[in-house]
Amino acid sequence: MPLGRLELPLAVSVGDPAGIGPEIIGKAWEARHTSGLAPFFAIGDIGSFAPHWSGPVVRIEDPADTLKHFDSALPVIQLHNCLSVVPGRPDLDGAHCAYQALEMAIGFARAGSAAALVTGPVSKSQLYAVGFTHPGQTEFIAERCGVAKNNAVMMLAGPDLRVVPMTTHIPLADVATTLDARLIRQRLRATAKGLQRNFGIENPRLAVAGFNPHAGEAGNMGREELELFEPAIAQIRAEGINVIGPLPADTMFHAEARAQYDAALCAYHDQALIPLKTLYFHDAVNITLGLPVVRTSPDHGTAFGIAGQNKALPYSMIAAIKMAESAALHRLAAADGS
Amino acid sequence: MPLGRLELPLAVSVGDPAGIGPEIIGKAWEARHTSGLAPFFAIGDIGSFAPHWSGPVVRIEDPADTLKHFDSALPVIQLHNCLSVVPGRPDLDGAHCAYQALEMAIGFARAGSAAALVTGPVSKSQLYAVGFTHPGQTEFIAERCGVAKNNAVMMLAGPDLRVVPMTTHIPLADVATTLDARLIRQRLRATAKGLQRNFGIENPRLAVAGFNPHAGEAGNMGREELELFEPAIAQIRAEGINVIGPLPADTMFHAEARAQYDAALCAYHDQALIPLKTLYFHDAVNITLGLPVVRTSPDHGTAFGIAGQNKALPYSMIAAIKMAESAALHRLAAADGS
Repeated sequence: MPLGRLELPLAVSVGDPAGIGPEIIGKAWEARHTSGLAPFFAIGDIGSFAPHWSGPVVRIEDPADTLKHFDSALPVIQLHNCLSVVPGRPDLDGAHCAYQALEMAIGFARAGSAAALVTGPVSKSQLYAVGFTHPGQTEFIAERCGVAKNNAVMMLAGPDLRVVPMTTHIPLADVATTLDARLIRQRLRATAKGLQRNFGIENPRLAVAGFNPHAGEAGNMGREELELFEPAIAQIRAEGINVIGPLPADTMFHAEARAQYDAALCAYHDQALIPLKTLYFHDAVNITLGLPVVRTSPDHGTAFGIAGQNKALPYSMIAAIKMAESAALHRLAAADGS
Repeated sequence: MPLGRLELPLAVSVGDPAGIGPEIIGKAWEARHTSGLAPFFAIGDIGSFAPHWSGPVVRIEDPADTLKHFDSALPVIQLHNCLSVVPGRPDLDGAHCAYQALEMAIGFARAGSAAALVTGPVSKSQLYAVGFTHPGQTEFIAERCGVAKNNAVMMLAGPDLRVVPMTTHIPLADVATTLDARLIRQRLRATAKGLQRNFGIENPRLAVAGFNPHAGEAGNMGREELELFEPAIAQIRAEGINVIGPLPADTMFHAEARAQYDAALCAYHDQALIPLKTLYFHDAVNITLGLPVVRTSPDHGTAFGIAGQNKALPYSMIAAIKMAESAALHRLAAADGS
């Protein structure tokens, strides 16, 4: 079923202006026709583009003015009090801008002035230095949207693989004690619902990766599968959610295996990110499930080391913009009851 | 530099005759011209082929007769006292045959009647039932070759990725306590030497994967990198071995990253096997480093569930035969001082 077009533009926060954010947003705008991108506007300092990217920018005051300008220049909503920054040299002014842009982008999406939110890459350590107290952008957005942080779930998605790491930035040795049946159930439910809302998949098929080699081989190589995963999965299955596993993690990510499920839930960071980045290093997208607004972001960092050198590849940003549009359209279609 | 041709044939043990071993060996023989395979002979029960594969087989008494027959039929060295088996129904007779075939294949390779050893898939639980006491074929071969089991190192190799799991079939929770600096050093040295001997890579480039997400981010997410990996790597580097790491595991397996090293050393089973099997599910090869003989095997099991149904893909077996030939030639070239 064709999903139509969005009436509202997408909001794209620039992220840290010393990183590659301005460059990849500019390059994504250049690809607006070839990649068939929905109209979007950037939120940041209009002066932060020129050191990174030589394309045309236009200052707008209202997201609604995006369409008028999008064909001829990248529309930018200007932040207050942003000083010029040097690519590759992050500073506190830039961190303030990144913080402000994020806050404003959430506001537009929450207020119904933007169809969805795409966030550019930020430096967590820079943000912490200006008073940001959340582990990352995702948790901040969840709080601003009034969502408990355990209900906002990170999914990473490439063209034919979606993964949800059930734990993220913790030592590997802490994973088994951090994962409990409640968390596993929560992630499974949020993933199923997120696939319905954002991807229009009516009856999502979930696959859970085992924790141990060969998923423990019936308890011979670790007991987490028997004691933790199997009971949690059984409960979720009883709720009518289509879920298989725990599966041996090494044999669930080749092409034929990927075709058997809509999302893989992984126990830890690398179990999810290794297959995703092995296959889709340049064009994976981070999408947050469980929010009242659509939020995507490119699956990479600020890359300060190459900022301002015209070396950054915009594919992940382009994919993030496309996925944001598609998710917003799926939500509208569902709201229409169509 | 062209490596020439082998004078001796390769020995291929059939593995469990109720599994897909006979079928994939038969299909590999069919592909002898298209895949440019060196002459090989199978070791097993000649009667175990027909239920799996309809091609021609010929009984030979001596490996030296391989060449005479290889063009027109698959040469088979007959085992004693093998009874017929039913595909997909493993039994103790078949396990005895698998055991005997392995033992004989090692003997031929050790005695200089075969250029290398390719082992077909066996069922460990079946072997255990007939008195096999080693964790797997690799440890058995190491013992028969007089090599301490920690010096026989499993490498899995696909067309452009080679991985060495530093620990294998143990619970994930035991990995951090099993890995110590000595084991890491041992694996690094064995891998460097194995790349020289079997792949002809004069100055091998090794990459070590971190244990924690983002390789621990300087101790912020786990300390194994600082306390275990970095000191061991520093020592190995001081021995003149080219090694980088510990690297964030999620960003070291895409194509550009793979081009930077000749082998990746991974802390645990899934860290190594996920990227390898995601990329090369059908054609990865298991090669044992550190042995006096060349030994490869397909990177899959007996697949009893599809045995005898003409469904098995021979690509991994074909790749194992090719890699065995290539490794044997590299060893000969080095022995010639060329």
